[in-house]
Amino acid sequence: MVIGHECAGIIEETGSEVKDLVPGDRVALEPGIGCWRCDLCKEGRYNICPDMKFFGLPSSTISWFSCSSDNVSLEEGALCEPLSVAVHACRRGNISPETNVLVMGAGSIGLVTLLAARAFGAPRIVTVDVDGNRLSVAKELGADGVVEVSTNMQDIPKEVETICNVMGAKVDVSFDCAGLSKTMSTALSVTRAGGKVCLVGLGHNEMTVPLTPAAAREVDVIGVFRYKNTWPLCIELLRSGKIDVKPLITHRFGFSQKEIEEAFETSAGGGNAIKVMFNL
Amino acid sequence: MVIGHECAGIIEETGSEVKDLVPGDRVALEPGIGCWRCDLCKEGRYNICPDMKFFGLPSSTISWFSCSSDNVSLEEGALCEPLSVAVHACRRGNISPETNVLVMGAGSIGLVTLLAARAFGAPRIVTVDVDGNRLSVAKELGADGVVEVSTNMQDIPKEVETICNVMGAKVDVSFDCAGLSKTMSTALSVTRAGGKVCLVGLGHNEMTVPLTPAAAREVDVIGVFRYKNTWPLCIELLRSGKIDVKPLITHRFGFSQKEIEEAFETSAGGGNAIKVMFNL
Amino acid sequence: MVIGHECAGIIEETGSEVKDLVPGDRVALEPGIGCWRCDLCKEGRYNICPDMKFFGLPSSTISWFSCSSDNVSLEEGALCEPLSVAVHACRRGNISPETNVLVMGAGSIGLVTLLAARAFGAPRIVTVDVDGNRLSVAKELGADGVVEVSTNMQDIPKEVETICNVMGAKVDVSFDCAGLSKTMSTALSVTRAGGKVCLVGLGHNEMTVPLTPAAAREVDVIGVFRYKNTWPLCIELLRSGKIDVKPLITHRFGFSQKEIEEAFETSAGGGNAIKVMFNL
Amino acid sequence: MVIGHECAGIIEETGSEVKDLVPGDRVALEPGIGCWRCDLCKEGRYNICPDMKFFGLPSSTISWFSCSSDNVSLEEGALCEPLSVAVHACRRGNISPETNVLVMGAGSIGLVTLLAARAFGAPRIVTVDVDGNRLSVAKELGADGVVEVSTNMQDIPKEVETICNVMGAKVDVSFDCAGLSKTMSTALSVTRAGGKVCLVGLGHNEMTVPLTPAAAREVDVIGVFRYKNTWPLCIELLRSGKIDVKPLITHRFGFSQKEIEEAFETSAGGGNAIKVMFNL
Repeated sequence: MVIGHECAGIIEETGSEVKDLVPGDRVALEPGIGCWRCDLCKEGRYNICPDMKFFGLPSSTISWFSCSSDNVSLEEGALCEPLSVAVHACRRGNISPETNVLVMGAGSIGLVTLLAARAFGAPRIVTVDVDGNRLSVAKELGADGVVEVSTNMQDIPKEVETICNVMGAKVDVSFDCAGLSKTMSTALSVTRAGGKVCLVGLGHNEMTVPLTPAAAREVDVIGVFRYKNTWPLCIELLRSGKIDVKPLITHRFGFSQKEIEEAFETSAGGGNAIKVMFNL
Repeated sequence: MVIGHECAGIIEETGSEVKDLVPGDRVALEPGIGCWRCDLCKEGRYNICPDMKFFGLPSSTISWFSCSSDNVSLEEGALCEPLSVAVHACRRGNISPETNVLVMGAGSIGLVTLLAARAFGAPRIVTVDVDGNRLSVAKELGADGVVEVSTNMQDIPKEVETICNVMGAKVDVSFDCAGLSKTMSTALSVTRAGGKVCLVGLGHNEMTVPLTPAAAREVDVIGVFRYKNTWPLCIELLRSGKIDVKPLITHRFGFSQKEIEEAFETSAGGGNAIKVMFNL
Repeated sequence: MVIGHECAGIIEETGSEVKDLVPGDRVALEPGIGCWRCDLCKEGRYNICPDMKFFGLPSSTISWFSCSSDNVSLEEGALCEPLSVAVHACRRGNISPETNVLVMGAGSIGLVTLLAARAFGAPRIVTVDVDGNRLSVAKELGADGVVEVSTNMQDIPKEVETICNVMGAKVDVSFDCAGLSKTMSTALSVTRAGGKVCLVGLGHNEMTVPLTPAAAREVDVIGVFRYKNTWPLCIELLRSGKIDVKPLITHRFGFSQKEIEEAFETSAGGGNAIKVMFNL
Repeated sequence: MVIGHECAGIIEETGSEVKDLVPGDRVALEPGIGCWRCDLCKEGRYNICPDMKFFGLPSSTISWFSCSSDNVSLEEGALCEPLSVAVHACRRGNISPETNVLVMGAGSIGLVTLLAARAFGAPRIVTVDVDGNRLSVAKELGADGVVEVSTNMQDIPKEVETICNVMGAKVDVSFDCAGLSKTMSTALSVTRAGGKVCLVGLGHNEMTVPLTPAAAREVDVIGVFRYKNTWPLCIELLRSGKIDVKPLITHRFGFSQKEIEEAFETSAGGGNAIKVMFNL
């Protein structure tokens, strides 16, 4: 993962072949680009192209830009990247006004997933985490309910019951934004027959999970990797106010050596930092 | 599971409200029936109806019948039940002339899955099992390749390589007809990015599997439970000769006490029995 | 079409086998019921069951009820029926935050389609009609733009241009809520390559339309008939306030002979009546 | 349409950046190429890219090649182009062992559609045409039934009845490979509730058709334009013998001025020519 792949800026100059952009345009950057030659790219799944080039590597200077609307700030534009993960997850999970949603995890990806699920019309969204502070943020961002859980596998049956009670309805789609045996086991157990568990967070490689009883209720496990064709939608969601990502930006820094160091400490510090932004 | 739920017969007498059947019609029986009141039934997923009634229980005497074609024997008609599992799995896996298929397991469900995948047009099918005799049957039934594997988790990387070589192409869809940590881990590792692993066999409840790297390639895990709306298609596949299930019937017994005991011993014996049939 | 099939009421008494309802429950009525025996019913498409029984006919006394929420009035409950048509249309059209919507027609079905498309997240919705008064209602109900058109086929190219300008974006999905050669021709011409035209209004049987150029851009024509599994969602949309149908009720009458006659005159009068409600 | 866009050949020389091909490789050519920048290309629908470049135009020298298998002749390779139309149509129509197919038209596109539908597993296929000779070819190529029809609109009800009788089952999907008011009206009338009519042939721009009664049975009209990602599948279908296109090649010519003239006369002559091939 290249550091600095969540970014936005203003066009200063354009090459002679650029037709869609002029100096002064505000743009957000999609950092990866498919090869457009493999089967997956040709079928429209460039996000899992095995030859995906990622921004910052010498070989991948080409990237796409989207004209950012005037009432979307550069900071918000930069957050199109994590928001894109959430939007892609909501598409894969087919979120609509008919899907009650469970979000496992209230880190930055869990929080943008909550915001995106709401924008896709989810009538009820419950967020689960081990950390009460994070859950408070989820609540402020609009979660209909929150459930604080332990890291203990033995607590799953009890916690599943609590989640059902807080949801007050069937869980149609769960997003596991942590990717651990416990979060996945909980999601598989609590999701209704015929529902989906979207695995978004890439925590542990191996998991010990009750896949068989889930399969016997045709609960599908849907892999979610990165994003594709999401920037225009993200900018529209920000422009229209359907999603407000500003509360996710908890800290801002300049780009001096000192501030950079402070920023990394803040981000790693385990405090209440969600998104730490550099303003150049 | 009610014993005797794979059966077919001839109509002897009909009630006054029966319009579609007359005495002499050969029929195969779908043993379960949905409630037709819950959301899942109304959406067409009666196979996962929580109030499914299963044939043989006192409360579930109603069942559907399909008129069996003249060139389909009663024995073949009885095998519509396991074949239905395979047909439902192929539908869930969206098998077509574009999907190369891996079948983990060469027991009776693995074998009918092989037959159904061929009927759905799969260009290449490879079957994997721990038992060389079973693999010989798979080969006779039309597998393009077979791979004998161990029960040792450490062998997975090597076996994945062998499966790829025998397939000679990408694995688009895998059917895990065993449902064990090892079979599922192998299937998750060998299936191409954007492919599907259908979990058909309900082996162990808990599995330890590399779900995360699979999700990062958007390999989805699709639950497969029983069947729905499969009998007419199964009978058509048997009638047209696209599927021949006769080689699966390895033993036949009458219905005396002695023969019943022999039949159960044969079935449980671990020999070369695939399907053991009672003729009444 | 049975007159009086849009209705809601309060349970006075229940039979001995009724478990989900008690006297005092407010309920809205789905007037049709499938046979649950044909292929279409079993696949979950009971709305096009050839043996659908419709409320009011002697043979179809069974119907489904949904418990209506306390903040949904009986009048609103009765409007679940037309709203269900719109919800089913939005499902068939796959409306989401990614679909800009054109609604041809601002009669009662066109207006509920506008409301439902908004609830499904459509970012921009433009309504087209020949009647300026109706378009004012559409505007009040939240249309982002309205276009007044003629009944003259020659005006189509010019009107297509106007619609594009008013939309200010591509038309992803069009709903033809009139069902005439002109409305359908306009919809087929204005919808983007790869988009959908949903035919909701059943106007003229035969239409003269430019199907071929639409097919050459893979614009699909999606049939929309009645509804299925919509009542619970409609009640939830009303309860949560995502849809407000109250402005559609323009007139109210009692159930005396005189008032009934007045009601029918009002409804047929071509004035500003949208929905005329009887309160019993 | 560029003349000569159905072609295959042998690689003589490769540029320095070509890695997948060596001189001597037999290749079939996909004549069009998307822009890979527009929304449609990025979603995998490059066949309806508005900036599609077509082989032969000065600006579109780049094209894709597929390594042709040894037992596929160059003549067969050239027929990947029309076969691709049929394969794309079968994908759009979702043809499987569960779909009985009607093909309107026994010209070259109708005939390859018949072949492709069989390869996708269609259990019954009926072909309709006005020309008895063409229908004989359809029969030889494997149609289960053929129906000779008139060009008279008044005959539709009678012909619909005949088609149903010859099919002996419901028509799940119809392919209109002519694209005329009469063929489309017939297809819309004969297709079962919930089925699909795929419009493949681009005959008349405007059609007068009973769209409304079809929509009321949720018969969808699916546009089919060109093809995408079809060459590898076509070559596999030819290689495996699932499709044999050789009977479609009725005439062969060299490339002298005289033979070219003869070839065009033959092709336009209205005789029994299906595909006229040049061997260079």
